[in-house]
Amino acid sequence: MKNPVERIAEKLIAGDSQKAIMVYSERNRRYFTEFPSDAGALLITAEEAYLLQDFRYEEAASYTAKNCTVVGFKDFKEKLCELLEKHGVKQVYMEINKLSVADARTFEKLFQEHGMEAILDDTLDKAIKDQRMIKSPEEVAKIEAAQAITDAAFEHILPFIKEGVTERELALEIEFFMRNNGAEAVAFDVIVAAGKNGSQCHAVPSANKVQKGDFITMDTGAMLDGYHSDMTRTVALGHVSDEQREVYETVLQAQLAVIDAVKPGMLCCDVDKIARDIIEKDYPGTFGHGLGHGVGFEIHEWPAFSHRDQTPCAPGMVITDEPGIYVPAKYGVRIEDMLLVTEDGCRSLTKSPKELIEL
Amino acid sequence: MKNPVERIAEKLIAGDSQKAIMVYSERNRRYFTEFPSDAGALLITAEEAYLLQDFRYEEAASYTAKNCTVVGFKDFKEKLCELLEKHGVKQVYMEINKLSVADARTFEKLFQEHGMEAILDDTLDKAIKDQRMIKSPEEVAKIEAAQAITDAAFEHILPFIKEGVTERELALEIEFFMRNNGAEAVAFDVIVAAGKNGSQCHAVPSANKVQKGDFITMDTGAMLDGYHSDMTRTVALGHVSDEQREVYETVLQAQLAVIDAVKPGMLCCDVDKIARDIIEKDYPGTFGHGLGHGVGFEIHEWPAFSHRDQTPCAPGMVITDEPGIYVPAKYGVRIEDMLLVTEDGCRSLTKSPKELIEL
Repeated sequence: MKNPVERIAEKLIAGDSQKAIMVYSERNRRYFTEFPSDAGALLITAEEAYLLQDFRYEEAASYTAKNCTVVGFKDFKEKLCELLEKHGVKQVYMEINKLSVADARTFEKLFQEHGMEAILDDTLDKAIKDQRMIKSPEEVAKIEAAQAITDAAFEHILPFIKEGVTERELALEIEFFMRNNGAEAVAFDVIVAAGKNGSQCHAVPSANKVQKGDFITMDTGAMLDGYHSDMTRTVALGHVSDEQREVYETVLQAQLAVIDAVKPGMLCCDVDKIARDIIEKDYPGTFGHGLGHGVGFEIHEWPAFSHRDQTPCAPGMVITDEPGIYVPAKYGVRIEDMLLVTEDGCRSLTKSPKELIEL
Repeated sequence: MKNPVERIAEKLIAGDSQKAIMVYSERNRRYFTEFPSDAGALLITAEEAYLLQDFRYEEAASYTAKNCTVVGFKDFKEKLCELLEKHGVKQVYMEINKLSVADARTFEKLFQEHGMEAILDDTLDKAIKDQRMIKSPEEVAKIEAAQAITDAAFEHILPFIKEGVTERELALEIEFFMRNNGAEAVAFDVIVAAGKNGSQCHAVPSANKVQKGDFITMDTGAMLDGYHSDMTRTVALGHVSDEQREVYETVLQAQLAVIDAVKPGMLCCDVDKIARDIIEKDYPGTFGHGLGHGVGFEIHEWPAFSHRDQTPCAPGMVITDEPGIYVPAKYGVRIEDMLLVTEDGCRSLTKSPKELIEL
């Protein structure tokens, strides 16, 4: 597979020297070049791609940035226009979903002064979105490496789950383990919700103490080389009631049914329906969120297993499969894997066990 | 002092029912309402301020959001226009430095369809910037509370600084201490740089081990209730050379001279010059960054002690005073307090000692 810069250039520029792409947002700049920095711009022309970086980053970028030539500058606008003019560019695609109104105006004016035009429609945003939806084998390997840390954190945390430990203590222990074991950062704030708190799908870890008979839901992920992982497991402290077990088994059944069903061509909204139908049958109204979201260079990206998303599944997509049942004021259960769509189905990138664990 | 919503309304709306302010960015929404959420909008009219929140946040916001009435919605645009029409609004100020081109277009079109106009100049951005520069006594108290955690972290970390400990281990220990002691988050990624690494002003903590005779620079801050603290201290492991001591004393002298000098009316660029002149005299070219930046609801805000910033100091501003000397491939020293400009001078919000500590 071609590198990400070559792929977007092929799609939008196709050898036309008069066209260029400017990637200004931090996330997309890093996606294309693998170089993290809080300022700068990636300029892609038909002939060459340049990463413009100021003195703080220029040296480091020259060692590690990929798919581009690193160019330092004293005056950003001057250097940008110099490069655009060198290649005879007349039109520059911009990211209208990321660029602020104030920045867009500045660039529009600058380009006009140099006889060029800023393209401020959604062509570039849409092309990046489409490209980022399909992960290369290298990207999948990075997501799996991030997930390996998350799997290890799950194994690590189980002995800490005891009567009296707080959600917040467990969340901090999970985070510190992941960061001490190679994670660049947590992929998102760790969620630990025990007992009644588990009925809120986005609970913030609190001073609430774990008690016997509680379900403990842990939603965690690591970030590594810019890529994210995302996993949820729900375990119990001590034995659960028959009612709790039935809820758990229903969520698991829905989660597994999705893994059985997903294949290229299936619409994302239809995947959501598979899990929803299983849960709604016996627990109507208890599954109050979408089934899943794309994961990759951001923790939430495209597409979504949602009733609103008609994107057909395609090989290379990585999407979470995370059904849940939330019983207000009682408890909640959610089980989440990341699924990679393959040529003939899908496979889970998540290795942690899913059978109910009673600690 | 009036609350932040009243202050901005007084400045931009002044009782004119046809005008309204829409605050859409996460940071400014939280600044005005003290309520954190990753979506929603604050609508300020002449008669009332509304925080629009979806079902995920509506209940929590109704308990804790300040200076506004919380309004839930199913359809955001519908609810927004309903409120604007109820108050007879014709013009809506928007944040052009934060709003994306795509969002701005959506709102522009929506407002036009309802006989209203989006004001997309820099009036609102400028008014928010001016207002946020001057901290209320309540805001100063929150910054001091965040700094108290940072001061405690400094005291906590000193016994951990031993031969062989890595920068990364120290950075993690500082972070975990702050988060276990009430910090909502770290204010920014903790910087720990020892020995040669100290010559880079924005070093990332590495596996580099602390050695005898090293300077160890620690730049840390906590976030609490949305407000940030920022402090740098440089300590030594074992005895330092006379050359090192002279560098340390020069930085300290520059840092203290600034505290002596700052008072209302003095231009920020002139404050920078006070520290710069002291360092340049004996160590020319070694102080490669600005003297300081505003701190508050964001870790870097306005104004800046920089040769480019001609803002006059005014009571209520909180600005860092952080001179440094960086000797390439040898070591670096930086000492940083946060200064609050008062009616007749300034006071440091930072309590940690500044005399050279040789551990």
